[in-house]
Amino acid sequence: MSSQAGSEIERLVQLLAKLPGLGPRSARRAALALLKKREALLEPLALALRDAASAIRVCETCGNLDTISPCALCRDPRRDASLLCVVEDVADLWALERANVFRGRYHVLGGALSALDGVTPERLSVAPLLERARHVSEVVLAMNATVEGQTTAHYLMDALATCGVKVTRLAHGVPVGGELDYLDEGTLSAAFRARRPL
Amino acid sequence: MSSQAGSEIERLVQLLAKLPGLGPRSARRAALALLKKREALLEPLALALRDAASAIRVCETCGNLDTISPCALCRDPRRDASLLCVVEDVADLWALERANVFRGRYHVLGGALSALDGVTPERLSVAPLLERARHVSEVVLAMNATVEGQTTAHYLMDALATCGVKVTRLAHGVPVGGELDYLDEGTLSAAFRARRPL
Repeated sequence: MSSQAGSEIERLVQLLAKLPGLGPRSARRAALALLKKREALLEPLALALRDAASAIRVCETCGNLDTISPCALCRDPRRDASLLCVVEDVADLWALERANVFRGRYHVLGGALSALDGVTPERLSVAPLLERARHVSEVVLAMNATVEGQTTAHYLMDALATCGVKVTRLAHGVPVGGELDYLDEGTLSAAFRARRPL
Repeated sequence: MSSQAGSEIERLVQLLAKLPGLGPRSARRAALALLKKREALLEPLALALRDAASAIRVCETCGNLDTISPCALCRDPRRDASLLCVVEDVADLWALERANVFRGRYHVLGGALSALDGVTPERLSVAPLLERARHVSEVVLAMNATVEGQTTAHYLMDALATCGVKVTRLAHGVPVGGELDYLDEGTLSAAFRARRPL
């Protein structure tokens, strides 16, 4: 952008560049697209942001984002209140809901333990989880299959042992559609160890 | 996203997914980042979009985007009014300004000729260009080095022949920092044909 160009454009580009997945170049392209499609894109997006800012809140029970708290998932009587699925982030909750495999309640931790980034159990929603776990029959740990995610899962497994609740975790194995040739050794060895009779 | 989640989030994701460079998955990540950083990101972005919508206009002389029309570049008395650089898009103007190589005026065509997409000369800012070209000493055609860009450059070269103005185009060759081994034959042959004495 030229130094002469409106500081409004520059400010827009700088803010867009802070979004995950957008660098300086793609932020400029996005800003241009917005300015070119003013009525179809820029104004609706400004409105949607304003609406989201005023309407969306964090569910005080599970940590999900919704317009109401407790959120629609926590209020839904058709969902099994005796099953609790623990995820790191709201994005993971959305992913599981898209897959449509789980009909219980969720608990969003707000991240994963990380000594490097100074994320201790106190900075995650661990204490509320232990409280909720007393009232359910099974806790499914759906952490990411990363070092931090698995460290968190092990920590939670120990912490939940005192609650006397059944604790499970997602299976590791070959992704559906995945080719063995392209998989890392860790996944292959996990899939092999967990092999099941046909 | 679950069907239960607020339609505000869904709408935000759908609009973000329309930005160039963002697909459905990255739009969801961007929406989440916005909702998590409400004061640092969401509200400033909503404000910046509103400001841009009301302040930014298209320069009636050159087609640039600015808060004033004619734009700051067209008004700047230090820029050489006898040099005119023709670009396809405002993004190209920004790129040239960042490179800081041209101190004349610009003319934004608004695209490139494309028989496939039905982009005829009438849909581009060609007539105003021919009018402006009468009052300058040199027109630099800075189209993209694509088939459409080069077709447009050839078309403009013919159209400008009647104006009696000097017409030049950007040099083709090896990009600075580029390795010959990775370049396509077209670039290599252009660079070879345009070789210059050391």
